[in-house]
Amino acid sequence: MARQERAIRTRRVILEAAGAVFDEHGYTATTISMVLERAAVTKGALYFHFPSKESLAQAVLDEQIPFGTVPSQPCKLQELVDMTFVFGQRLRRNSLLKGSVRLAVDQNAPAGVDHSGPYRQWADRLVGVLEQARAQGELLPTVQPRRTVELLVGAFAGVQLMSRALTDREDLSERLSVLWGHLLPGIAVPGLLTGIDREPDRGTRVLAVLDKADGGGAGAGEAAEEQLTAGRR
Amino acid sequence: MARQERAIRTRRVILEAAGAVFDEHGYTATTISMVLERAAVTKGALYFHFPSKESLAQAVLDEQIPFGTVPSQPCKLQELVDMTFVFGQRLRRNSLLKGSVRLAVDQNAPAGVDHSGPYRQWADRLVGVLEQARAQGELLPTVQPRRTVELLVGAFAGVQLMSRALTDREDLSERLSVLWGHLLPGIAVPGLLTGIDREPDRGTRVLAVLDKADGGGAGAGEAAEEQLTAGRR
Repeated sequence: MARQERAIRTRRVILEAAGAVFDEHGYTATTISMVLERAAVTKGALYFHFPSKESLAQAVLDEQIPFGTVPSQPCKLQELVDMTFVFGQRLRRNSLLKGSVRLAVDQNAPAGVDHSGPYRQWADRLVGVLEQARAQGELLPTVQPRRTVELLVGAFAGVQLMSRALTDREDLSERLSVLWGHLLPGIAVPGLLTGIDREPDRGTRVLAVLDKADGGGAGAGEAAEEQLTAGRR
Repeated sequence: MARQERAIRTRRVILEAAGAVFDEHGYTATTISMVLERAAVTKGALYFHFPSKESLAQAVLDEQIPFGTVPSQPCKLQELVDMTFVFGQRLRRNSLLKGSVRLAVDQNAPAGVDHSGPYRQWADRLVGVLEQARAQGELLPTVQPRRTVELLVGAFAGVQLMSRALTDREDLSERLSVLWGHLLPGIAVPGLLTGIDREPDRGTRVLAVLDKADGGGAGAGEAAEEQLTAGRR
């Protein structure tokens, strides 16, 4: 393995360990030693990538956006819906993501850590999708994309929080389905409403497509995507 | 002052001090000594009312519902909207409420504290209002009151969280107005949509009515309520 590749891997191992520890203990109670032990790397390696606990927390906070990656969809509102379901599914399983969300939600971030980062980054990422939806004529004329995506990001944060408090996120997909059932009538042109798939298992199906695309060589992704559309209820 | 009245006052003073300290430091970093110092009561008085830090946190968590009290409205959806705006206004100023919301949102509640309480209590409180709205023909036939209020509680939690992270809750009323702009089309019968007041200053106006009713003797409340309706845009 080349030196650079090894460094990237080590950085990732540290980030994942840090995410897990932040998720379990919160920012204040987390120590560098706890992360070192979990990651099983040397102190030198950790400090090479992250000079402080603050910089480690910031890096964990900044890792969220890639977890919302989904296959492109002809209907951009569907793509937006998919991003929330897939992110929700990953949030139930991935410790790095859990830790990142906990840091964004907890109030005790020290001065050096900007825990508003994920809210801004998500709004910036999603507003582009909604602008595309607008260009394709999917949105009601009253929609202001920036306002709508900021509401979506805030509402998502709270819905996952409530799901965690009540069921350890077991019912997150159902709650996201209810969220979209309430939001879409105020966003989408009426003709699109029944065509957008917001079934609770949407995230699982989209992830299956992504997994096939990863594992199956050329053409597998497209075949799986066709399945996704055919599987829509 | 009678002994019982004094005990009630002392309990309140302790609760408000605890709320402020929990808001500033979070559950883990808060100590009984910090609350004692803030409340300026004796150790004996505190332990008489709250035998442990857990019981203090639980009592602070259980204080939220009265902060959503608003004057009754002929339109029950308006009353529901009012509850969120008034709660939001109070959340910007009241330390006990801030502390309670922080405890509900933070993940590090110990085994002895049920921080899912406020979510359940709010859903139970609000579902009654939505049932009344249904009985009065205000809701679309597709609405399932329990699902809708649980979504509302979750979305509110996240919207206030995002508002706190980005603007220290300065823009909470605007964000609540956007929330209702998106939720109402999926909840209310079309004929009600333009009549429901969800202007960002709604909370300030409803609170003014409540203050007048408190201070002005018989009749003042009704006069102020008339003003509230007249002031609707």
